[in-house]
Amino acid sequence: MDNIISFNTNSGVLSCQAGCILENLNNYLEERDFIMPLDLGSKGSCHIGGNVATNAGGLRLLRYGSLRGTVLGLEVVLANGMVLNCLSSLRKDNTGYDLKQLFIGAEGTLGIITTVSILCPRKSAAVNVAFLGCDSFEKILDIFKESKSMLGEILSAFEFLDYSCREVVCEHLKLRNPLQEAPFYILIETSGSNSDHDQEKLSHFLEKVMACGLVTDGTMATEENKIKAVWALRERITEALVRDGFVYKYDISLPLERIYEIVIDMKNRLGMRAKRVVGYGHLGDGNLHLNIVSETYDQQVLDSIEPYLYEWVAQHSGSISAEHGLGFKKKDFIYFSKPRAAVQIMQQMKVILDPKGILNPYKTLPSLSQ
Amino acid sequence: MDNIISFNTNSGVLSCQAGCILENLNNYLEERDFIMPLDLGSKGSCHIGGNVATNAGGLRLLRYGSLRGTVLGLEVVLANGMVLNCLSSLRKDNTGYDLKQLFIGAEGTLGIITTVSILCPRKSAAVNVAFLGCDSFEKILDIFKESKSMLGEILSAFEFLDYSCREVVCEHLKLRNPLQEAPFYILIETSGSNSDHDQEKLSHFLEKVMACGLVTDGTMATEENKIKAVWALRERITEALVRDGFVYKYDISLPLERIYEIVIDMKNRLGMRAKRVVGYGHLGDGNLHLNIVSETYDQQVLDSIEPYLYEWVAQHSGSISAEHGLGFKKKDFIYFSKPRAAVQIMQQMKVILDPKGILNPYKTLPSLSQ
Repeated sequence: MDNIISFNTNSGVLSCQAGCILENLNNYLEERDFIMPLDLGSKGSCHIGGNVATNAGGLRLLRYGSLRGTVLGLEVVLANGMVLNCLSSLRKDNTGYDLKQLFIGAEGTLGIITTVSILCPRKSAAVNVAFLGCDSFEKILDIFKESKSMLGEILSAFEFLDYSCREVVCEHLKLRNPLQEAPFYILIETSGSNSDHDQEKLSHFLEKVMACGLVTDGTMATEENKIKAVWALRERITEALVRDGFVYKYDISLPLERIYEIVIDMKNRLGMRAKRVVGYGHLGDGNLHLNIVSETYDQQVLDSIEPYLYEWVAQHSGSISAEHGLGFKKKDFIYFSKPRAAVQIMQQMKVILDPKGILNPYKTLPSLSQ
Repeated sequence: MDNIISFNTNSGVLSCQAGCILENLNNYLEERDFIMPLDLGSKGSCHIGGNVATNAGGLRLLRYGSLRGTVLGLEVVLANGMVLNCLSSLRKDNTGYDLKQLFIGAEGTLGIITTVSILCPRKSAAVNVAFLGCDSFEKILDIFKESKSMLGEILSAFEFLDYSCREVVCEHLKLRNPLQEAPFYILIETSGSNSDHDQEKLSHFLEKVMACGLVTDGTMATEENKIKAVWALRERITEALVRDGFVYKYDISLPLERIYEIVIDMKNRLGMRAKRVVGYGHLGDGNLHLNIVSETYDQQVLDSIEPYLYEWVAQHSGSISAEHGLGFKKKDFIYFSKPRAAVQIMQQMKVILDPKGILNPYKTLPSLSQ
């Protein structure tokens, strides 16, 4: 189940079996001057079938969009054993309903994905990274707007982390922070086809945000090793947190303006009961990873977080599960993000495609009796 | 039903009622330095609700992707009168199945879209257009590959037209062809944030494709009037064809390598019975508009085209309805592009959401008895 079936260098369409590991696919494509349209911290072990089944987001979503746009076709085994062939390699196909969308993000509850056809972008000739310090969250939003205007089509990531994240990666993983201390850090990546042009754009952008006081300190990386070192500060946060204690992990979407409020609110709420409350994530996508650490697992801490957090997110029109999925832990919380009528339609679809409830039971949707 | 509800300049998310006209939305956004992620020839009259219901493609799909990625939320009135609220403004939301996908491209057969929330890109500071002549279709594919490599992130359209298209727009609309006669013409558009950078990229690209003989003749337009004049050669083909006689119109997707074969095949098949057989379209998306003209409507001509054309497309793994939809004319031809099992699942979904069959009956899907 880990074979590459075909790759068309004219169209950039890759067709492969679901068991292919994301990083292997990306390596295969890089040799041919292409890349996968998604990139995750777990790329070395995750399978493309699982990526599609969970509608994985990750680091390149800002640039290349969601899998709902880049996945062109799927082959799926249904609950009745039948193989459903929606394995198109076409960018445009409006013949009837787009059934493959049912299986993207359904976490295996409607069918098992066996083959994926996906549109892959060209590999960028030039990649540059800037790492910036910033003294308020409001300024991050201004920097984001400025980056969309001045970096536009070459902007490929806009990530942020707060001071506590920086602290934890330096403390537990001995990573070096190249900047002065700041309440927030931003990682901006550009990818483009012309190295000189991109560096010029990025330099102008940095000059501007520093001149007008949006940024307190900044550094730019153009060499691969330096780029990797900067990315490590963002990508290895999860790994560092695990060494810090028991981690309560949340993956939420919120309107950009409110995205950091919940971190402050949660810090105040938990007080000394939490060892650490940290916020980081894909700011460009409105996606916050809120992680809370206590020395060991503590039911009282959990009870203080949930359902309070979900209520807070619902009140601010957010999503309680942004790029991960509901799985079996969060399925009963779906009503915080979706109206009852919507969940009923989801349940009807589940009955049609899996009448005996044999595909990933107890996952994604609350049971019918509710 | 034509109100703009909100626009967030941080996230670029527009929320509006379904009756808004696409061009009005784009004008509203341009004043705020943004644009709609889709652009169609019919922008002056088409409604955003209809665009979403038909999963419209158009001129910007190559750059900004399909509506399945850019539409973030929908409000839909169901057949039972209930209002289904899937009106998220979030880029990432993995809580349960993504129901809004059901209504994108369902041509109003599963529910009536009343509100749309859509992610809008920044307006590009620089837009440039190149118009090229080319003496074979194979060379067009090479030029496309070269453009993806050298223009990369600024490539925003790659359209082609054949000699007959050029002939018909010059004959009936008196448009001027700025190039020498050639069997094929290509229109390449770039959009980016830095005018100097973009013109340099485009010049290098043109030098290369001319030096290696891929292009026989070319011109570049950077002023708005000249850009419009070049686009008119491509956008006004439909208008010119209507003045030429009765037009049999087809909108198909095919693997890039085969896309022009069907035009040649159809020319040979119809011979003198067709006044004109023309091919043009969004090459970058694998989308061909095959139009055939006869002096007046002729059932024998139609019988020679259908179902032959659909069989040909099916044999070459294409789609018989790329960016338009099946409507009521083509619903029974769905089996040329979708397996029977898939159509059955579509019909089951229709029964769930519209048990009495009151929403756009006789459209998109063949009747259940088949």
